[in-house]
Amino acid sequence: MDDEATLEVCPRLTLAFDILGKRWSALILDVLSHRPARFSEIKNAVPRLSERVLSARLTELVDAGLVDRIQDGSGAHHYELTTTGERLRPALDAIRTWANDLHTARAS
Amino acid sequence: MDDEATLEVCPRLTLAFDILGKRWSALILDVLSHRPARFSEIKNAVPRLSERVLSARLTELVDAGLVDRIQDGSGAHHYELTTTGERLRPALDAIRTWANDLHTARAS
Repeated sequence: MDDEATLEVCPRLTLAFDILGKRWSALILDVLSHRPARFSEIKNAVPRLSERVLSARLTELVDAGLVDRIQDGSGAHHYELTTTGERLRPALDAIRTWANDLHTARAS
Repeated sequence: MDDEATLEVCPRLTLAFDILGKRWSALILDVLSHRPARFSEIKNAVPRLSERVLSARLTELVDAGLVDRIQDGSGAHHYELTTTGERLRPALDAIRTWANDLHTARAS
């Protein structure tokens, strides 16, 4: 270890993982990156996610400005990514690519 | 919502966030993406991270094949990313870029 420079964690990354690091949040965002969806659709897409936790996570994601809750003409609601939420897509794609490598490394 | 296709969460992304979603793990990997580091250096780089939790997280990251624990000539140890851990770098960079957007969106 030649480089003795002081290490610091990136404050932006800390902010990002305050959101993404909560269990299920990134997976909910991934589901909504495919298309807008109703509560029940998101719940069905994510195995083992309870209604109570999904409700809490969606509220956090709305508050964080990543998801909008939209009332449609019939009075029902659905959820969709905001522009900031959409911008997470390349990062999720990069993580998915890495996870493929990880899976391959473990299988070999 | 025209597209009524069934939504499914990506199993690879689920695997990735089983690791990255644990509090501090991504930040520890980010610190080690700068250079190999000793336990005390990682601890100092991540505010509010206790020794007990850092120790647990490092064990998990070693078990997951993302970090190596190396004994150097003096008998001391340091930690460094494995090849699989190094491959996470583009994903962390993409998340950092997104977090910059998020910070800017919140500040405006």
